[in-house]
Amino acid sequence: MTEPSKVKGRIHPGPPKHDPRDTISTQAWGFEDTTFAVDSTGAITVTGDRYPGLSGERLPDLLPWFRKVVEVDFPLEPGEAHFELPPVPEPRSANGFLAEIDQSLDADQITTDPAVRLRHGHGHTVSEINAVRTSGFSRIPDYVVFPENEDEVSAIVRAAVHAGVVLMPYGGGTNVTEALRCLPYEERPIVSVDMTRMDRIEWIDPVNRMAKIQAGAAGRLIQAQLAEHGFTMGHEPDSVEFSTLGGWIATNASGMKKNRYGNIEDILLDVTVVSALGKLERSQVVPRESIGLDPKLWIIGSEGSLGIITSAVVKLFPLPSERRYGSVVFKKFESGLAFMYELAQQDVYPASVRLVDNLQFQFGQVLKPASKGAKKVKSKVEKWLVTGPLGFDPGEMVAVTLVFEGTKEEVDRQEKLVYQLSKKHKGFKGGAENGKRGYLLTFGIAYIRDFVLQHNILGESFETSVPWSQAQDLVDRVKRAIYQAHDERKLPGRPFVSCRVTQIYETGCCIYFYMAFYAKGVADAVGAYHEIESVARKEVIAAGGSISHHHGVGKLRLPFVNDIMSPAMQAWREQMKFALDPQGVFAAQLPLESHDDAAQSAAVQVAS
Amino acid sequence: MTEPSKVKGRIHPGPPKHDPRDTISTQAWGFEDTTFAVDSTGAITVTGDRYPGLSGERLPDLLPWFRKVVEVDFPLEPGEAHFELPPVPEPRSANGFLAEIDQSLDADQITTDPAVRLRHGHGHTVSEINAVRTSGFSRIPDYVVFPENEDEVSAIVRAAVHAGVVLMPYGGGTNVTEALRCLPYEERPIVSVDMTRMDRIEWIDPVNRMAKIQAGAAGRLIQAQLAEHGFTMGHEPDSVEFSTLGGWIATNASGMKKNRYGNIEDILLDVTVVSALGKLERSQVVPRESIGLDPKLWIIGSEGSLGIITSAVVKLFPLPSERRYGSVVFKKFESGLAFMYELAQQDVYPASVRLVDNLQFQFGQVLKPASKGAKKVKSKVEKWLVTGPLGFDPGEMVAVTLVFEGTKEEVDRQEKLVYQLSKKHKGFKGGAENGKRGYLLTFGIAYIRDFVLQHNILGESFETSVPWSQAQDLVDRVKRAIYQAHDERKLPGRPFVSCRVTQIYETGCCIYFYMAFYAKGVADAVGAYHEIESVARKEVIAAGGSISHHHGVGKLRLPFVNDIMSPAMQAWREQMKFALDPQGVFAAQLPLESHDDAAQSAAVQVAS
Repeated sequence: MTEPSKVKGRIHPGPPKHDPRDTISTQAWGFEDTTFAVDSTGAITVTGDRYPGLSGERLPDLLPWFRKVVEVDFPLEPGEAHFELPPVPEPRSANGFLAEIDQSLDADQITTDPAVRLRHGHGHTVSEINAVRTSGFSRIPDYVVFPENEDEVSAIVRAAVHAGVVLMPYGGGTNVTEALRCLPYEERPIVSVDMTRMDRIEWIDPVNRMAKIQAGAAGRLIQAQLAEHGFTMGHEPDSVEFSTLGGWIATNASGMKKNRYGNIEDILLDVTVVSALGKLERSQVVPRESIGLDPKLWIIGSEGSLGIITSAVVKLFPLPSERRYGSVVFKKFESGLAFMYELAQQDVYPASVRLVDNLQFQFGQVLKPASKGAKKVKSKVEKWLVTGPLGFDPGEMVAVTLVFEGTKEEVDRQEKLVYQLSKKHKGFKGGAENGKRGYLLTFGIAYIRDFVLQHNILGESFETSVPWSQAQDLVDRVKRAIYQAHDERKLPGRPFVSCRVTQIYETGCCIYFYMAFYAKGVADAVGAYHEIESVARKEVIAAGGSISHHHGVGKLRLPFVNDIMSPAMQAWREQMKFALDPQGVFAAQLPLESHDDAAQSAAVQVAS
Repeated sequence: MTEPSKVKGRIHPGPPKHDPRDTISTQAWGFEDTTFAVDSTGAITVTGDRYPGLSGERLPDLLPWFRKVVEVDFPLEPGEAHFELPPVPEPRSANGFLAEIDQSLDADQITTDPAVRLRHGHGHTVSEINAVRTSGFSRIPDYVVFPENEDEVSAIVRAAVHAGVVLMPYGGGTNVTEALRCLPYEERPIVSVDMTRMDRIEWIDPVNRMAKIQAGAAGRLIQAQLAEHGFTMGHEPDSVEFSTLGGWIATNASGMKKNRYGNIEDILLDVTVVSALGKLERSQVVPRESIGLDPKLWIIGSEGSLGIITSAVVKLFPLPSERRYGSVVFKKFESGLAFMYELAQQDVYPASVRLVDNLQFQFGQVLKPASKGAKKVKSKVEKWLVTGPLGFDPGEMVAVTLVFEGTKEEVDRQEKLVYQLSKKHKGFKGGAENGKRGYLLTFGIAYIRDFVLQHNILGESFETSVPWSQAQDLVDRVKRAIYQAHDERKLPGRPFVSCRVTQIYETGCCIYFYMAFYAKGVADAVGAYHEIESVARKEVIAAGGSISHHHGVGKLRLPFVNDIMSPAMQAWREQMKFALDPQGVFAAQLPLESHDDAAQSAAVQVAS
């Protein structure tokens, strides 16, 4: 289909620049140059120079504090974080499929390399990362293909339909829903379609503030290229360095600055998809429309189950002329939550506003590096807060971190409003530096999970959304449920349970939970982790929270769909999937009926 | 399904108060008490007292001006606007269906009354209104049922599935897409499901700013009841007095104040639907979530083709403490459009901002009543604008009408920004009174279409959305295409063609066109109207505009879906419909393959 009117003034950027330093780890989160390690003094250090305030720093307070929290004086495991490749099953034969795609793809676009196949068979749950370091999976993709344009994707899908092959689209591999896990009982060959070679911005339309971007473009590439032309998509999920546009659409993603730029559904104008029935595309893109049944909407949150997203047209925003950070401390979580609620009732929100509970506030403190005297300054202020007339309790106080973006006038106005409200709730300004640090730490602390895993601590996050009136109750119930489930299983020490409110809406908020516990010597540690997380999820739903705010369902949360949807609504999902993909080519979201793989990897003792 | 946590503080309003004066016309737009008529002096008057500035007024300038514009000195048809009921086909037998629903519905909930059935068989296109005044339709619903609760809707759908009956949900009957037209070749009995007895607000949750509202509630009832509790949904389409919540969701509607409150997809939190596969409902409602394939999204814009919407949970907003109106005149359309574009690039929009072209500006002037000296004041300002140093051309100038809502501070800020920008584009403030009038006229002028129809003028509106860079070109091309198509058909006089920009987005705008021409003595007037409208629609699409911004597709625009969607995308729509409604019970959106009825009604001379 051709576009009816060529828009004047479109910019056609070249291919993105790939920084050779941006090598991505295969058995841990993030870039290879960044890891948490233990130095000769026994203090935790961070390698690389990527994350200011963290990279290259020593963090002497972290380990003692964490040992105290989990109530286990756990030893550090010696040695570097290096892991052998676990056993990888042989690829199944798929000769018909390979013969057909051979006509469209070059040899370097198809691989059976065990390490590559392994990486394409999982996301980033702690159970998956544990498995890739230990027992591996009984089933992973048999082939990985790397299409470089839409026609090649079409050829792959056609061949899969002809040959009865399963396709699973792959973007950044950052999902935390087991979306990429291969079903052990799947008899057909499984092909992972790695979209990351389709990473170009096809055009930028500066007049109409739109860009057409290929689905495999990672967030950092999109950000860098748009910034060269003065624009941003504004979409900044925690995983923005690695996750891709296609993944954002497929998981119905949310960015940390959604208050200013919207969630992915607000940013998305058009999408092109290669499905089992052919290519879905439109001859035009408009700001908003009413066209009856709209397949674009069905793709949002489709999690790879309906087709392969090849590109999308998204809204752009001018880069903000002003960005300021801020932070506020409150005496206790309830006060912080009351502040967040009242802020949500206003008409102007900061780009990002997040409330961390006391444990996470402490965590932020102990993550401060030994250098630069930051700790001393902090201590002075904190001492005053605690011993002064305000009487803050270090075991109760919480913090809000703020990012303001816009014109100078807008930012002034946002700041004024926020600090008026925080004052009303007896909040005390914590300074811009702490706010900036709090926001940027998001990217750095993602690496800690794999560090602690190496030291026998299983931990990860899960999120929900909930109406305001139920938020406090949900937090209390979920924390209680986790402590109790941990107790009941007689696991060592005490779990780390913490939460933060990461998004506000008029009607409610998004809450992230972090849960970790020491698991050395526990027979079925990963299994126990799954069980406790399930207990927590059940409690979330019972307290009125959603299955997920933005991570999605994948295979991990599919069992909980029963709890929130009527049978007819579930039947709609099944019927629709069957109608649009009658052969089940896109098998990403079929239920993992038994947790065979999880059970198997759990049977191997964690990191031992 | 039961709600997991009962939200505290929910308000349960009683049933809405129905004003006995709110009787709705059956063969014309709107309330029965309001009509345009001709008084003894030959001037146009407006009956009733509903619309300030219009109702009860004489409009001496309107007729002479309109005659000039259409270049026909047309005579007024004598007599009152009263129309006989056209021939109405006998209802087909549906004994099995009736026997089954008889167990659930009372006698007064089922009717075969010819006038009621006729009314339920059409919306508000000019062709439909012409038909109900003349030849009628060859096929209309055989029965109309009036469910009063969700269980009754379920009983109706079950019975329809069992008996092979077609269901067509009916809300306000205000659609302009022929969505309610019955297919002449439909052999099965057709039952219209009138939802208007399900018009209650089930609850208001003031803490979380949500309300659950039954789908048959008309906008005016929702507005009045929410206002009693200090809230608004903020959704104000032109048809808000009559159209219903269910209709808004089913057509993917847009309100005039979407800048402040969002379009329907932004306001909708949850929806309950009775489908052929059972009842779709959720056990919880949350601010935002990611749950994989989400049937809620499929219902948006489903136009009655997938099931019957029975209720929805929507966002609420506090009633604005401040509302101000405003207007700005610009020298020409291009300047007004440049102003609208620049405003769209800001971060703060007024609740409503609309740009009318010169013809519509003139229309607004001649609609001013003879009373109150308004005309004299206007003339003085206009005379100064035209003869003064600014040199406005009365045949070129255009106007922007503005509605500001929010707190005093917000409204101050919006005003400041808007008037700064308008000054930059050499706009001249036209005053709050003109702005208010411009906004409120929306509701009153809807009655003119049926008045002029009575005097042999066919006219109505259609809308589109388009990226900014193509907006001016689209307007020029569409106007030119209409003039040319009118010429080619050697129709009398000259068509009235006018447009306004009614919504702004960062990426583009919504444009409404108004088209009318004198048709007395034209053999196939309605046919000619359809043809010209089709020419215009083709031109809209060729110029990069959408099929519809918010009216929807219905049956009228279905042929154009080919022009914008790839075959696979169309196949998705068909497969999905078939999967979720395998028997085709919800037959609202099947294509009207031949325009039999239109042709038939066109064969009867218009109003003669």
